[in-house]
Amino acid sequence: MISRYDKKEISNIWSEENKFKTYLEVELAILKALEGEKVPVGSSDKIREKATINIDRINEIELQTRHDIIAFCSSITENLEPEIGKYFHFGVTSSDIIDSSLTLQIKQSLEQILPAFKALLNSLLLRANEMKETATIGRSHGMYAEPFSFGQKLLGHYAEFCRRYQELEDFYKNDLRVQFSGAVGNYTILEPKLEAIAAKELGVLPEEHSTQVIPRDRIAKLVSIISMTGAAIERISVEIRHLHRSDVGELHEGFAKGQKGSSTMPHKKNPISGENLTGMARMLRSHIGLALDNIVLWHERDISHSSAERMYLPDTFGILFYSLTRLTSTVKNLVFNEDVITNRVFENCTYLSSYYLHHLIETTNFKRDDLYTLVQEASFEASKTQSAEVFHNTLEKLLIEKDSSLTLPMPTKDEIKKIFLKSTNDVFERVLKQYPQGKEL
Amino acid sequence: MISRYDKKEISNIWSEENKFKTYLEVELAILKALEGEKVPVGSSDKIREKATINIDRINEIELQTRHDIIAFCSSITENLEPEIGKYFHFGVTSSDIIDSSLTLQIKQSLEQILPAFKALLNSLLLRANEMKETATIGRSHGMYAEPFSFGQKLLGHYAEFCRRYQELEDFYKNDLRVQFSGAVGNYTILEPKLEAIAAKELGVLPEEHSTQVIPRDRIAKLVSIISMTGAAIERISVEIRHLHRSDVGELHEGFAKGQKGSSTMPHKKNPISGENLTGMARMLRSHIGLALDNIVLWHERDISHSSAERMYLPDTFGILFYSLTRLTSTVKNLVFNEDVITNRVFENCTYLSSYYLHHLIETTNFKRDDLYTLVQEASFEASKTQSAEVFHNTLEKLLIEKDSSLTLPMPTKDEIKKIFLKSTNDVFERVLKQYPQGKEL
Amino acid sequence: MISRYDKKEISNIWSEENKFKTYLEVELAILKALEGEKVPVGSSDKIREKATINIDRINEIELQTRHDIIAFCSSITENLEPEIGKYFHFGVTSSDIIDSSLTLQIKQSLEQILPAFKALLNSLLLRANEMKETATIGRSHGMYAEPFSFGQKLLGHYAEFCRRYQELEDFYKNDLRVQFSGAVGNYTILEPKLEAIAAKELGVLPEEHSTQVIPRDRIAKLVSIISMTGAAIERISVEIRHLHRSDVGELHEGFAKGQKGSSTMPHKKNPISGENLTGMARMLRSHIGLALDNIVLWHERDISHSSAERMYLPDTFGILFYSLTRLTSTVKNLVFNEDVITNRVFENCTYLSSYYLHHLIETTNFKRDDLYTLVQEASFEASKTQSAEVFHNTLEKLLIEKDSSLTLPMPTKDEIKKIFLKSTNDVFERVLKQYPQGKEL
Amino acid sequence: MISRYDKKEISNIWSEENKFKTYLEVELAILKALEGEKVPVGSSDKIREKATINIDRINEIELQTRHDIIAFCSSITENLEPEIGKYFHFGVTSSDIIDSSLTLQIKQSLEQILPAFKALLNSLLLRANEMKETATIGRSHGMYAEPFSFGQKLLGHYAEFCRRYQELEDFYKNDLRVQFSGAVGNYTILEPKLEAIAAKELGVLPEEHSTQVIPRDRIAKLVSIISMTGAAIERISVEIRHLHRSDVGELHEGFAKGQKGSSTMPHKKNPISGENLTGMARMLRSHIGLALDNIVLWHERDISHSSAERMYLPDTFGILFYSLTRLTSTVKNLVFNEDVITNRVFENCTYLSSYYLHHLIETTNFKRDDLYTLVQEASFEASKTQSAEVFHNTLEKLLIEKDSSLTLPMPTKDEIKKIFLKSTNDVFERVLKQYPQGKEL
Repeated sequence: MISRYDKKEISNIWSEENKFKTYLEVELAILKALEGEKVPVGSSDKIREKATINIDRINEIELQTRHDIIAFCSSITENLEPEIGKYFHFGVTSSDIIDSSLTLQIKQSLEQILPAFKALLNSLLLRANEMKETATIGRSHGMYAEPFSFGQKLLGHYAEFCRRYQELEDFYKNDLRVQFSGAVGNYTILEPKLEAIAAKELGVLPEEHSTQVIPRDRIAKLVSIISMTGAAIERISVEIRHLHRSDVGELHEGFAKGQKGSSTMPHKKNPISGENLTGMARMLRSHIGLALDNIVLWHERDISHSSAERMYLPDTFGILFYSLTRLTSTVKNLVFNEDVITNRVFENCTYLSSYYLHHLIETTNFKRDDLYTLVQEASFEASKTQSAEVFHNTLEKLLIEKDSSLTLPMPTKDEIKKIFLKSTNDVFERVLKQYPQGKEL
Repeated sequence: MISRYDKKEISNIWSEENKFKTYLEVELAILKALEGEKVPVGSSDKIREKATINIDRINEIELQTRHDIIAFCSSITENLEPEIGKYFHFGVTSSDIIDSSLTLQIKQSLEQILPAFKALLNSLLLRANEMKETATIGRSHGMYAEPFSFGQKLLGHYAEFCRRYQELEDFYKNDLRVQFSGAVGNYTILEPKLEAIAAKELGVLPEEHSTQVIPRDRIAKLVSIISMTGAAIERISVEIRHLHRSDVGELHEGFAKGQKGSSTMPHKKNPISGENLTGMARMLRSHIGLALDNIVLWHERDISHSSAERMYLPDTFGILFYSLTRLTSTVKNLVFNEDVITNRVFENCTYLSSYYLHHLIETTNFKRDDLYTLVQEASFEASKTQSAEVFHNTLEKLLIEKDSSLTLPMPTKDEIKKIFLKSTNDVFERVLKQYPQGKEL
Repeated sequence: MISRYDKKEISNIWSEENKFKTYLEVELAILKALEGEKVPVGSSDKIREKATINIDRINEIELQTRHDIIAFCSSITENLEPEIGKYFHFGVTSSDIIDSSLTLQIKQSLEQILPAFKALLNSLLLRANEMKETATIGRSHGMYAEPFSFGQKLLGHYAEFCRRYQELEDFYKNDLRVQFSGAVGNYTILEPKLEAIAAKELGVLPEEHSTQVIPRDRIAKLVSIISMTGAAIERISVEIRHLHRSDVGELHEGFAKGQKGSSTMPHKKNPISGENLTGMARMLRSHIGLALDNIVLWHERDISHSSAERMYLPDTFGILFYSLTRLTSTVKNLVFNEDVITNRVFENCTYLSSYYLHHLIETTNFKRDDLYTLVQEASFEASKTQSAEVFHNTLEKLLIEKDSSLTLPMPTKDEIKKIFLKSTNDVFERVLKQYPQGKEL
Repeated sequence: MISRYDKKEISNIWSEENKFKTYLEVELAILKALEGEKVPVGSSDKIREKATINIDRINEIELQTRHDIIAFCSSITENLEPEIGKYFHFGVTSSDIIDSSLTLQIKQSLEQILPAFKALLNSLLLRANEMKETATIGRSHGMYAEPFSFGQKLLGHYAEFCRRYQELEDFYKNDLRVQFSGAVGNYTILEPKLEAIAAKELGVLPEEHSTQVIPRDRIAKLVSIISMTGAAIERISVEIRHLHRSDVGELHEGFAKGQKGSSTMPHKKNPISGENLTGMARMLRSHIGLALDNIVLWHERDISHSSAERMYLPDTFGILFYSLTRLTSTVKNLVFNEDVITNRVFENCTYLSSYYLHHLIETTNFKRDDLYTLVQEASFEASKTQSAEVFHNTLEKLLIEKDSSLTLPMPTKDEIKKIFLKSTNDVFERVLKQYPQGKEL
């Protein structure tokens, strides 16, 4: 991860030092499982006391062996008495250590990400509740459609993020696996029973079927959840950027004192968080192809996945964590221009067309298609001024031409709000029942 | 879908005719929910009797309106008395119909795919059981590593496919949603309560939060499961192609009488199913990017997703169904060359290195690193002839130079099999406990 | 290609019938090259007279042989005298025919696409010229930045499309290749000299190095140009959708008489072409991954590329052709709301900040940073009303506080236009010098 | 770039320090262009003498302004006399500096990459020439097809890499652009003429049409060339891995003294470079989606591309450089097992089928289809033993049954080589004529 976007909470997990610390934990868990069988009881504790991670020494040995696990093991065992040292890395192959450690690093990363994600859910829900009663113009195709609750708009993003949160949490609980199955997964030296003990020691489950490698569909599933989370991040970022643009002006990102928008245009305040996060989401999306490619290893495994994983996996978690925390503070600090939002609702009343159409279907005996044509004509006329009155008057005139006994109601602002926000509470209730995650913190 | 790969089971679902039939079902479900409220009881049944899908007429109307839902509705209502007809498509917007129908078409597709998938699981499990006791040389990096059970190799693919099957089934049960929330999801005319009734009528759940569109992360989740299924298909296809190649010859695809391998090389039998399915998997992988892009709609929705979905979604299901059924018959008809498989195990015995290494760790007091060096030297020597005897003799000689009292066992074929397949049963048991899906049919 | 988006100009090229017609052309070109050597002069003409494409018969034979080239050849030769028939498909392998035919189909497709592309360039240039003198507010980050020429905005899209057009034309001229190199490209029966003659007969170049397959980087290069063309299509589509949205209203797509925007909201006119084309672009982008995957064939070739190419290649060309023609008519029919465009320029004058900043740098001795701070303060004040006067007056007041001798010019509308469009002509000239393609038709 | 794969030649270019150094070069080039117009002659030289890059100070200022270009400019100008300092960054907007600097960093990167690429071409050509006369069995579908020259196999990779090299070199010459067009590209303060002077000073061309941003299709084109180069790297890596596998053994990667293949299997020598480079190629492929996404900026530009480019662009160049240099040394050090390669050709003679088929077409009057059937029958019989003699005898027997006067030649090893390598020289000549790049160093 480049330093600009680095978050220590994640990059520490993926440091060389933590990698070797995790290797050591994994090796000790195996030893522990072997104690009493082939290895004297207490061996793992003894080694834990003596073992230190010496990265310089590991690098020195790797220069010769060109194999990082062998280098790591030698760096540990060269300081142990041979009779204990020889059982270090006993019965396993490098991949058992590497892949199980990778799982533990993923576990540690998720332990940072899940609470950060929860905080986002909480912020979204707070802002949604805050704006629940505010009417805003909904847009389809980017065109004014009908009013609805601004809070409900935010609630839709909340619901999407909750789906992803749930998937991530489920993954954390069910899909983290370690393996100690030896070369090609044949348990020549160890056995599934011992593997289960070591896995328990590490707080995760053993992989049901491993072949010198934890099958890469596990990681692909995680990355697919993350790339969908990226899409959710992009969707709300694009919404913020849309509502932020000068033409819309319904909100703006918090702008710190002293912050400058442009080196040459002093008047600019830009949605830079929304734009930054859009780019972050593109990065996350680019990782799913890698994760899918890496599933297709040859035979019991090749290591074509390794170089790519070394690069993209830490970035996946780093970018996700960065994005979740930045989005949380962006959401918290969004300034809603409520006047702009509300005025727009009442200054552009052509959306009454649907309301009038259904009113006329219910109260007259004309055919739906004929009514549609009438209402469309009046709304096109009204669209020149966006005026509700022009709309009402034009349509009433057209109606009277057909049937002079007809009249048309002209809804007040309050009535408009009642018409278009009548189900807001029901929607909030239903969403919170299904997705309660953001209520807790 | 091009006709070469077309499967009627899927393409019938995505035909124009079925689309309009599904539209009708959806419209009638809404009417049914409205009965007693705004609409006379029995209206939906009355319309069902009279309504017919007339594609020519729909196209005729669409030419003028350029709007397919309006064209569809007009084609139905022009044959109804106005007082009923006017309640057809009452309170909903086009997207309510289009998206809910899409969900029903996805449902129908999954109802074809899940049993086809089950059949694949069953075939894989049968072949895995059949080959359980056969030793084969495992390969890592494409290099001979150690023997293990050929059945266990197949079992790994079985386990991966079971994970995908389970995810697809879970999606089928939990993620299929319909919406009748009106323009921008504000329920101006209908309300969540009525939506729930109509959804129940259709056998699925209502979307908790829709905004003129069912949020596209639903589809993206499905497509991500399918693209991972594609990767599983590619992984086993690549395995088949590897084991099939002339240099390996451990299996070949069933070859029908009269089939020709090459127009100019009459001697060729090619793994064409494996290759075909590899290409199919690439197609499925290419769809995940589309599904992720389509999540990021503007505001309450735009229709930038629509043109892509019209094209890629039917293909996704078509290719998946084609691939699952073709892979099932490929797996069923695989011819295993057991002699080749077994002979290779006993003709390339350098893999005994790990066995010897661990044997010597346990039975001598030398340091692990020193033993590794000894065994590596002997195995490099043996690799010239691949002979177990050369390996044994060289290593024993090197050992005796260090300590003349040492001897080295020379395992027989039976002992080799026992050493390397000792945990096969345990692995089968564990996999079947976790993944019983392939046992039922 | 689904019928909704089908264009006969392209789908006819990719029909089964044309495929076999192209096979025949290729086979006859080889025969022609062989005439005088191994084959009697005139053989190819004789066969051309007699040969007919009988798809039913080909399918019948393929059912038995499961090999389409063999089936095709048999369907031709079974009607010929054996002494001529036996030289049909002489010395080549199936791939020679299939891949060379594919090249010819690509050639035919490009011959449809290039003129359609030219028409788009022409339309864009016409509209750019038409709007050259119209000032519009430029936007960065979606925020009003400074005015510039609306025509120049369109010209940027023109320039991007010209780059793609040039690449496509270069590909058409230089990268279309055929091969007649036999199994694994070893020319056992034919030879490079004969290949060159047959290629010339077909109007293209021979591949310098083929191995039973034309290397797939050729196709990948084409698809990468097309996917970048897709991105250009998406960029202008997104621009149209932005300028079209209700909040902006600077243009709208042509709306045909009778067209309906929404089934429930009669007032809607939507940017459906822009949205449709955005989806089309996503499809084109999804193909580049396939084309890259297909490069990596095993050894001298496998056929894992084949199933994917059968599906995606015709779609690539179909979607591109559809998109270019639809975009051309969309551009032609765009309605520019010049009042809205122009009024916005003069109603939001905070952009004068940069002009003032540079004016003050040039005419005063204050430090740049201090001037920036002054101008920013005045522009933030002015942003409340967007008024040029408020801006001018506030800034002048701030300046006078610093140095009472200073005055500040207040530019008129005409002056504003002169300031911000002063280089428009130069830019048009430079672009047209580099990219003259759109001038010709 | 993670340190494991870091190459200083590239990472130095993308360091913070070099970024600001490049900013300074760009600012000075503009000043130089302004000299004599608005700025006193000699100003740029004066500033160059005094200016130093002080990253700590820049970071300090950015903390307040949150704008890195403003921070950079202030850090320079705060040490200058105001009357000069105020013309630093005169008339440009941040993007002019950022994007032009980016172009210069890309230029510097390509200046490292092109010679490294040339070295690869040279190595490939050397090894191809070395193996030109060695017959190897070509494979299609992974199945033995026919012999051809091993050198020709390598030559195919050479030709593909030459295509990419040429594209990269063309990009370097024609597509590197800078811009000094001010906010939204309207040249309010500067003008195209001055831009051209500054561009010349920097050794590149001005962008014909820029809008506060150099259009991102420029970068996408470069990344698409690089991702295709990645596919070429993957193709040869997969070839190496295939020929390296134990089942094939036709080559192996150079194995350094002391290197260890497996922590538990001392006998392993693995194609780790091939596998590593396969992963690298996947990374490069993942970048094309990002580059395409980044084309579609809003209006005159947004900065959604920025965060992604900061991360992936340095990696793209770093990975490419790493891969080219590693592949070069891998190719140089490949050990070809010529005995294995050659013996395989003569131990598996069923490929004679095509030779026999064409021989019989030319020398008998049987129909092609009938001959095909005969040859196929004989070759299937021969495939049991792979023996050329069995093939010959079986086929001759079948022929005599049809016509007792027929005989069949039995080619010697030398004849076989002559038959199947007869055009090798022609192919080399043609390739070298088209692609001479690897001949020079």
